[in-house]
Amino acid sequence: MCGSADQAAVLQTGDGPPGALSFYYGHPDPTAFPLAELLTAAESALQHHTPASLLYGPEQGPPLLLDILCCKLRQDEGLPLTPENLFITAGASQGLDLICRLWARPGDAVLVEAPSYHEAIALLQDYPVQLVAVELDQEGLNVGALDEAISRLRSQQTRIAFLYTIPSFQNPSGVTMSPARRLAVAALAREEQLWIVEDDVYRDLCYEGSVPPSLYEMMEGQGVLRLGSFSKTLAPGLRLGWIVAGPVSVSRLASSGLRRSAGGANPFTAYVVAEFSRAGCLEPHVARLVRLYRARRDAMLEALQTAMPPGVTWTRPQGGFFVWLTLPQSVSARAVLTAAKARGMSFPSGAPFFATGGGEHNIRLPFSYITPPDIARGMDILGQAIRATSA
Amino acid sequence: MCGSADQAAVLQTGDGPPGALSFYYGHPDPTAFPLAELLTAAESALQHHTPASLLYGPEQGPPLLLDILCCKLRQDEGLPLTPENLFITAGASQGLDLICRLWARPGDAVLVEAPSYHEAIALLQDYPVQLVAVELDQEGLNVGALDEAISRLRSQQTRIAFLYTIPSFQNPSGVTMSPARRLAVAALAREEQLWIVEDDVYRDLCYEGSVPPSLYEMMEGQGVLRLGSFSKTLAPGLRLGWIVAGPVSVSRLASSGLRRSAGGANPFTAYVVAEFSRAGCLEPHVARLVRLYRARRDAMLEALQTAMPPGVTWTRPQGGFFVWLTLPQSVSARAVLTAAKARGMSFPSGAPFFATGGGEHNIRLPFSYITPPDIARGMDILGQAIRATSA
Repeated sequence: MCGSADQAAVLQTGDGPPGALSFYYGHPDPTAFPLAELLTAAESALQHHTPASLLYGPEQGPPLLLDILCCKLRQDEGLPLTPENLFITAGASQGLDLICRLWARPGDAVLVEAPSYHEAIALLQDYPVQLVAVELDQEGLNVGALDEAISRLRSQQTRIAFLYTIPSFQNPSGVTMSPARRLAVAALAREEQLWIVEDDVYRDLCYEGSVPPSLYEMMEGQGVLRLGSFSKTLAPGLRLGWIVAGPVSVSRLASSGLRRSAGGANPFTAYVVAEFSRAGCLEPHVARLVRLYRARRDAMLEALQTAMPPGVTWTRPQGGFFVWLTLPQSVSARAVLTAAKARGMSFPSGAPFFATGGGEHNIRLPFSYITPPDIARGMDILGQAIRATSA
Repeated sequence: MCGSADQAAVLQTGDGPPGALSFYYGHPDPTAFPLAELLTAAESALQHHTPASLLYGPEQGPPLLLDILCCKLRQDEGLPLTPENLFITAGASQGLDLICRLWARPGDAVLVEAPSYHEAIALLQDYPVQLVAVELDQEGLNVGALDEAISRLRSQQTRIAFLYTIPSFQNPSGVTMSPARRLAVAALAREEQLWIVEDDVYRDLCYEGSVPPSLYEMMEGQGVLRLGSFSKTLAPGLRLGWIVAGPVSVSRLASSGLRRSAGGANPFTAYVVAEFSRAGCLEPHVARLVRLYRARRDAMLEALQTAMPPGVTWTRPQGGFFVWLTLPQSVSARAVLTAAKARGMSFPSGAPFFATGGGEHNIRLPFSYITPPDIARGMDILGQAIRATSA
């Protein structure tokens, strides 16, 4: 053995000063990880599922986990799924990545929401595709704008690979697409034969009311690839997610060169998650997270109400991790960030969340991994920074 | 909880009949997995490295594992590395995948060996690139043929993204590129400013003599991305590998959209492997594997000597997992496969290992996961099948 390095900093501070309050990340709360249950599950994965959990494994994922997911989705949403509808991924990002590889050709357009998840934008930008942004409002994707974008691209002979949408508790906006909008999007997609990649990773983290049926459900599984993840509800370091899709799409994903070469995505952690779920740990853990994150969302909304100067508006998410803040048109988010950093608080300003420009007056605020006192302190600093910048 | 599915079959039978002797896969021996030590390492990862092992983690990988790998490569090969030269991947396949994404543009050529690893070919074929095969002989890549291919592509104004080569204990041929060839390839690559992706996943499994210095070493780290993996020496189900490269290349990999979105590749299993290694388990385990696989290679070479009819030739690998067999020109590998399957033995015939045709008279024979008695039985059947097909 030679020397050992220090461990990684748990939460990098982004571009804020050391010790600053970072509202930078879209992380779950690391203090809520179910360590004891995961340890038991890891032991089970090694004691009862070897060698399967240590081998390459089936490209689609371990049948045990496919079955567990199938049951969960049938129970939670009444979806008429079979294991042929499920494909295990190394997290939703890897799912989106593989879909882009297989569904997009060079020069294709990929439709994304404005705003959308900035790192999904970065991921898609590594492909030779053209991102086309479609605006979002309080009810979700603007269907008129979507229709126009499709028509414009078609008139330019541009093939559209797919629409990437986050309809529930969107990252970054916190907006949930209304049932009426979902119906309209589904109808348009059907009419235009538009593939939809539905990023639905926050579905289980609903703090108020209920989540509308997914686009996958509304389109009866036709032309939709729906991304799910254990990163928000269990732990991102396990790198485990799934895709719900039609059996032909699942076969296409499973027969990709990456999967043929690498086998299933993360067999070991797939068995850890399967055992965690089989032990009955998943449902109560998610219920605990819902209570925890609901309280933080409430703390954030209350702190914003207290701390924000007039002219600032924000969304009121019914689930997920984020509130999206809009500054007055005269105030730049970058300038506010500079002022906030000087006071010990940082956040991502809005620009990276727009594939083709925008966001100069927006701020994404996560509440998931920050305690209510720090949320209050952070919003207080943010309020001061906005006032200082407006002055 | 709802119902639970049966576990995945551990080794799928390929396209052979049930109960057949499968020489189909390039797997390590699952009976050699170090279960007890992995269990201890998994416990340590959860007891001593949370939340880091359960979070997204740094894009480059956990500093602890970067440091361990850096020490290992310095000790084993005397490479003057620092952690800035290392990038953790979800296995070598995912490394190759990410490299292809970032280094290749639509329409580029990618040079591959003929034969080459068939699933790497499949993986590269998911990209809009043109694969160009360069022949291999007993000393490795034919440098004259490489030079010609480069000249031809350049004269056609075709950009070459990189050369993908497996210089040590090649999959499928078992051939190791000689030091002289390595020098010549390195000189040509330098002259032509050709990027090399060096797949070196079998380096630690050397049964005879020593492995020549890597192309990475010969090119002093310039223009080479070298893939490593724990899949052969520890367990593929952990999905963990690495890339050795220059710091600029490592930064490019770490700032890819996939990594920005997903964080580090497999933080949890990265900590499991780090703890396994810190406990001093890796070196003795690899030494055990070398003894095990050397005996199997010897058993395979002996069985071939006994069972093969005249006119059949095969390679004598000094390491790795595979022997590569060449049938007489009058005998087709597909016909032999049919005859072998009827007798209860299957293998991959040579065609998929050639990106642009060839392999009609070749058979890849793994010895890694098959016991000596089964190796003898399999080669006996194969000999019968060849005789039956030749008759």
